Amino acid sequence: MSTHILPKALTTLIDEFGSLPGVGPRTAERYAYAALRREAGQSKRLAQALNELHQRVKTCPVTFALIDESDDLSPLYTDSRRNRQLICVVEEPLDIMALERTGQFDGTYHVLGGAISPIDGIGPEQLHIPELIERIKNDGVTEIIIATNASVEGESTALFLQRYIQEAGLTLTISRLARGIPVGVDLEYADQITLSHALEGRRTLS
Amino acid sequence: MSTHILPKALTTLIDEFGSLPGVGPRTAERYAYAALRREAGQSKRLAQALNELHQRVKTCPVTFALIDESDDLSPLYTDSRRNRQLICVVEEPLDIMALERTGQFDGTYHVLGGAISPIDGIGPEQLHIPELIERIKNDGVTEIIIATNASVEGESTALFLQRYIQEAGLTLTISRLARGIPVGVDLEYADQITLSHALEGRRTLS
Repeated sequence: MSTHILPKALTTLIDEFGSLPGVGPRTAERYAYAALRREAGQSKRLAQALNELHQRVKTCPVTFALIDESDDLSPLYTDSRRNRQLICVVEEPLDIMALERTGQFDGTYHVLGGAISPIDGIGPEQLHIPELIERIKNDGVTEIIIATNASVEGESTALFLQRYIQEAGLTLTISRLARGIPVGVDLEYADQITLSHALEGRRTLS
Repeated sequence: MSTHILPKALTTLIDEFGSLPGVGPRTAERYAYAALRREAGQSKRLAQALNELHQRVKTCPVTFALIDESDDLSPLYTDSRRNRQLICVVEEPLDIMALERTGQFDGTYHVLGGAISPIDGIGPEQLHIPELIERIKNDGVTEIIIATNASVEGESTALFLQRYIQEAGLTLTISRLARGIPVGVDLEYADQITLSHALEGRRTLS
């Protein structure tokens, strides 16, 4: 019905916006209408960015981070100020951005490319785990920080990884990100699992 | 800093998505990453829809609704089943979609192109009010329903329009959408202005 009310080009754009994650029909309408209201040039810039995306972005063959098509390896790996003996293992490339924003980490990253999820048919063999083992050996890695998500899948993946590395006979420190109360959250609103983690991981002050 | 962490093409796309209304940096990242993860063809379809948008959509010269570039007038105006003597006046083209979804209205629409807002420098002269007066005369309009937003600007616009039509010496019914408690909202959560409107507009049942 909506095809009759709105011009086809706008309906098409609404449908395409609606295919982005978490974008419902009303939000898609709002984006499409905003794209129409502003200068054509601005919408064309978004179009160009979308068109060029796949050919200009590739995956680093060592860290599996996203890199420029002109780069051979991730700049976060080739940077000599970075400690290659310390690897932070994440599920997705965008997790790297979140960690880099802290400005606290001077090691390198390894993107698994997801988490183990039997429901979605993702087993350990689809993740970049053999390549991680390779790196541990090649770069003489002394510590890996497992920074998978705090979801069931993230937890299983962390557990799997820990066992896999131990069974491979590699001796290095394996750590995980601390779980606890996030900043700005009142104790009374924290869920019980988070609170259990916070109790478990409590730090002695003196 | 983020330019070094993520490939340029992805950063560009994140910036462009971020220019859409209500899209913050994290949401823009999520959209851009989703665009990268899925097939290139799907992202190119969104790009194409954006590229064609401005040349394929135009404004109806009578109703100011958005129409296909191949149409002369809005199909909602030319449709013979539509009552041209009844006009629903709205602020923006997308408001038409919201009203059409009800399936309750068989009149035609008139898009003002905004609402009176001195802060934003929008006066009545920037709205399609003279064209509305023209239509009222040409089509022998018997009723206009003012369906501006329930905001300060929408209210002022409605008031201005009402006076303007009366001062033009046109005799026709002018109505407004009812204000009251929306479906699914508990009385205790309704704000006092909405409740005042609901009391004022109460309907006698027998």
